[in-house]
Amino acid sequence: MAVEDLWRLFDIIGTLAFAVSGALVGISRRMDIFGISVLALATAVGGGMVRDVLVGITPPMALRDTTNFLLSVGVALATSFLYQWTALHRMRRQRLLTIFNVSDTIGLAAFTITGALTGVRVGGDDSYVLPILLAATTAVGGGMIRDVLAQRMPVVLYAEVYAAASLVGAFVFCALRFTLGVEADSWLAFLLVLMIRFAAIHWNWSLYHPRPPKRHRDGEMEE
Amino acid sequence: MAVEDLWRLFDIIGTLAFAVSGALVGISRRMDIFGISVLALATAVGGGMVRDVLVGITPPMALRDTTNFLLSVGVALATSFLYQWTALHRMRRQRLLTIFNVSDTIGLAAFTITGALTGVRVGGDDSYVLPILLAATTAVGGGMIRDVLAQRMPVVLYAEVYAAASLVGAFVFCALRFTLGVEADSWLAFLLVLMIRFAAIHWNWSLYHPRPPKRHRDGEMEE
Amino acid sequence: MAVEDLWRLFDIIGTLAFAVSGALVGISRRMDIFGISVLALATAVGGGMVRDVLVGITPPMALRDTTNFLLSVGVALATSFLYQWTALHRMRRQRLLTIFNVSDTIGLAAFTITGALTGVRVGGDDSYVLPILLAATTAVGGGMIRDVLAQRMPVVLYAEVYAAASLVGAFVFCALRFTLGVEADSWLAFLLVLMIRFAAIHWNWSLYHPRPPKRHRDGEMEE
Repeated sequence: MAVEDLWRLFDIIGTLAFAVSGALVGISRRMDIFGISVLALATAVGGGMVRDVLVGITPPMALRDTTNFLLSVGVALATSFLYQWTALHRMRRQRLLTIFNVSDTIGLAAFTITGALTGVRVGGDDSYVLPILLAATTAVGGGMIRDVLAQRMPVVLYAEVYAAASLVGAFVFCALRFTLGVEADSWLAFLLVLMIRFAAIHWNWSLYHPRPPKRHRDGEMEE
Repeated sequence: MAVEDLWRLFDIIGTLAFAVSGALVGISRRMDIFGISVLALATAVGGGMVRDVLVGITPPMALRDTTNFLLSVGVALATSFLYQWTALHRMRRQRLLTIFNVSDTIGLAAFTITGALTGVRVGGDDSYVLPILLAATTAVGGGMIRDVLAQRMPVVLYAEVYAAASLVGAFVFCALRFTLGVEADSWLAFLLVLMIRFAAIHWNWSLYHPRPPKRHRDGEMEE
Repeated sequence: MAVEDLWRLFDIIGTLAFAVSGALVGISRRMDIFGISVLALATAVGGGMVRDVLVGITPPMALRDTTNFLLSVGVALATSFLYQWTALHRMRRQRLLTIFNVSDTIGLAAFTITGALTGVRVGGDDSYVLPILLAATTAVGGGMIRDVLAQRMPVVLYAEVYAAASLVGAFVFCALRFTLGVEADSWLAFLLVLMIRFAAIHWNWSLYHPRPPKRHRDGEMEE
């Protein structure tokens, strides 16, 4: 598979997955069908627009081509109707959270790959730094935009091993790309990000929290 | 009127209108005169800076020219003083909300036109996709920045037919530009966005909300 | 000292200072060590990435070089451990707020200088507008990203003389650069921003607030 097709494949996987995650957040915020579509769209194309602007690809792909736009809005409509017309809205909170986590994680992994591939194209074949940092920025960007717009604490700030999963995947991608070839390497890194993040969710990896004193509560540093 | 002058005219209309909307949000958040100015400025020039960066016009117009900077700060000061010294602060909540909606809608319509004109200039005379998507991004960008900074739910996510009004206006602009000429076409699209959005506010167009179950409340999907 | 070295020096000062401020906000939000690192990183490199993208330096420095990335994560880890293992977490709220204000102000002043130096390089030796506006955008950008991600009201919107301190510093930098030479001028402007902001904090400069009526409470303009 040509690198362009591979890039496009992961771009579509990430767009679909992030659109689902954005639509679910919109539904949980009781938005109407337009709000849900805008949030799905911002989540799905936001990270990629940031990626393109950061490396000077202007106008970004998402503004030159309606595919991702239509895909995102289609996913938003489909998710909304499925939510009401099927058993989805009778699911327990935990199940909905699982669907959200799965779609968010697939988006994270897929955009890690598109970011790394773009970084290699812009930075040159032997570059490490740009592909890894661009991969992580692209991967966490869409979810960050979704959460900031929907006034939630961004997943990347509270989730177990989120940006770190993307960084590890991008590093492995860069380290093995000449050994495995770009195609096999992309799939390996994609699966690795998925596995790390799912493991972190499943075993609820508990990380070091600097212990705040009892009286030091949320937001108390505000003036 | 030359296209440059037309662009500049709508840029100034949008800047003034969005500055008013930003200043009103700042006042309603009890900010001081500096905070109100910064919020008015971010609202008024934010969308245009995003537009310019997206199509590779760097540095963006707003950083090369102090006109919009001074206009925004002037509007912020004037709005603040009018608020206190006139009957404005004795108005009922509903009236203030109306002033906010009018200024926000004029900004939306005016930046739809500057975005579409910029998209045509960058994308070529026969382009449709870039002008329409850039118009909507420019138009909703300023309000999004305003609302995210002021910690409000962004208007674009809850308002009736907001981004959609901009998309329709931009589509009509693109479809009729060769028939009507750019100047008449710009004014037609501007008025169309205004009318669609005001109609949506006035008749409180009720859109499809996927019905969430009772126990599925705001934010409950947070981990 | 060459202008490049001077730029780099202020870039490192600002990165370290903003990383401390981001880490403190993360700790006060009870984030784990990954969340704290991401927030410190976004604060420390965010403003500079916005600056580079605005003037068309793509990919931005922060994605081409791991120094600032590693510095920010190192500062986040060090701040977290110091917080727990030393007397830091037993400090009174007021003391922690002071450390936050000092680091945030040093970051503001240092990024004012890197923004102004970049503006002069891009805009030409006799430019005023671009260096001043770019300086203020760079200086307030990192803190804005930090506060939006952490769901706090951005400092720039409520603080006494924050963006204004940066604008004054940048103006003095531009006015005196041929008289004093770039190096002395940079340090003078840096100290000036520090002094203005610290004076505003210390004497709690009370600015004009348009007085909202009693019944006009926070957020009541929401629909």
